[in-house]
Amino acid sequence: MTARISDSGGPFAPVIEAWGDAAEVILVCEHASNAFPQPWGDLGLTAEQQRAHIAWDPGALGLMRGLAQRLGATCLHATVSRLIYDCNRAPHMPGAMPAVSELHSVPGNAALAPAERAERMAAVYLPFHAALHRLIADSLARGKHPAIITIHSFTPVYFGQPRSVEFGVIHDADTRLAEAILAEAQAQTSLTSHLNAPYSAADDVTHTLRLQATPYGLLNAMLEIRNDLIATPGAEEAMAAQLAPVIAAALARCHAPAEAA
Amino acid sequence: MTARISDSGGPFAPVIEAWGDAAEVILVCEHASNAFPQPWGDLGLTAEQQRAHIAWDPGALGLMRGLAQRLGATCLHATVSRLIYDCNRAPHMPGAMPAVSELHSVPGNAALAPAERAERMAAVYLPFHAALHRLIADSLARGKHPAIITIHSFTPVYFGQPRSVEFGVIHDADTRLAEAILAEAQAQTSLTSHLNAPYSAADDVTHTLRLQATPYGLLNAMLEIRNDLIATPGAEEAMAAQLAPVIAAALARCHAPAEAA
Repeated sequence: MTARISDSGGPFAPVIEAWGDAAEVILVCEHASNAFPQPWGDLGLTAEQQRAHIAWDPGALGLMRGLAQRLGATCLHATVSRLIYDCNRAPHMPGAMPAVSELHSVPGNAALAPAERAERMAAVYLPFHAALHRLIADSLARGKHPAIITIHSFTPVYFGQPRSVEFGVIHDADTRLAEAILAEAQAQTSLTSHLNAPYSAADDVTHTLRLQATPYGLLNAMLEIRNDLIATPGAEEAMAAQLAPVIAAALARCHAPAEAA
Repeated sequence: MTARISDSGGPFAPVIEAWGDAAEVILVCEHASNAFPQPWGDLGLTAEQQRAHIAWDPGALGLMRGLAQRLGATCLHATVSRLIYDCNRAPHMPGAMPAVSELHSVPGNAALAPAERAERMAAVYLPFHAALHRLIADSLARGKHPAIITIHSFTPVYFGQPRSVEFGVIHDADTRLAEAILAEAQAQTSLTSHLNAPYSAADDVTHTLRLQATPYGLLNAMLEIRNDLIATPGAEEAMAAQLAPVIAAALARCHAPAEAA
């Protein structure tokens, strides 16, 4: 790691780590943490619930760091649980501070007043997106056009149904990078890889991309890895070693001049 | 005015004024100011150039305040000249810190190094958009969905050519509010009113809307008034009195339930 650029912006600001010159790729992990700090505390969840996939994306932070190291990327991650505030959801969405997540009710989110929603949003969501915006705008002002890639993991069983997909590549309005990553994953790996699985932009999962990448026309994609494949530090590293060349080749494909007709 | 909410965010942050509960409308004036503060100073421009339309949108701030007062809106405006940093341009666009504006070269912008571009961007653009984002996200967290309307003025003569349009309504991807404002302007006023004139989103003039309104699906539009029609405080007030009911009726039209087929 070359530098921890900043963790300013209040006690719940994201952490930014630079593993290279930040020019080509910025990696984002909105669901990196299952911390339940005061003043919100555990929201009435059991210790088991706080460790479960409803609270965070297990393995995603380690995978992202492994990718950042190999790609020379800058990465940014949230420092509180998505159940306190989900930085990949707009402030008016129920999922921003969900009262129910999959099969679990979240007592501390059951009856939030508008002012309480606004306070949590200001404490967690605003510093997260301000820090990411600062990174992106700084790159643009210097003449660089980073790709924005969000890193997620998903549970192998959801609402009782097993999921066979292992690697999902989700796009928003701009499909270029997602399609290139899928093609490279299918060419380079044996992962069961699908576009827009296990869910898609229609499920409101691409908020960060819409807010931060689309307005600047930056290449962007959301990556989803099934969390049983990144359940240990060794597995996170192995997956990073497998996916870093996939991403690098996809970026090269997107940056290549269009072929003559 | 009910309150000056905030002018934090450094010496070049925008000013926010609340004339109501901010629920329904947020007005934005990126080109309100022709101030050339240190450390940048006058950029080598003459006093006459600093007063001209290349430095700011004359009349736009007074018009916006008149509209905010009548609509009970919150408004936000830049406090430095667009020639120092144009908050309606992305950091990589030449127009963000233009070396030439219409017929005038801007000596202080002629040979900016990447680090100088990044510093100006961080001093002016980031606090402007952070403050606007905070206003919008706070409204959303409280269950409100404000319309975002940017207020501009344009010169009657550009590159030697007179312009006959008096009131331009410019849309980005979402045309709803712009079309409703145009229809109401044509019904309620005798202004020569056109859609996407004297320029359009293709000219990169809708950056604020793309960055702040589109990601949240908020109603949005950019209004352009020919500056000879708002050349005095009295004319600004008269135009505000004419356009406030146009905007109010257009918002009501957009918020009305769709008619049965």
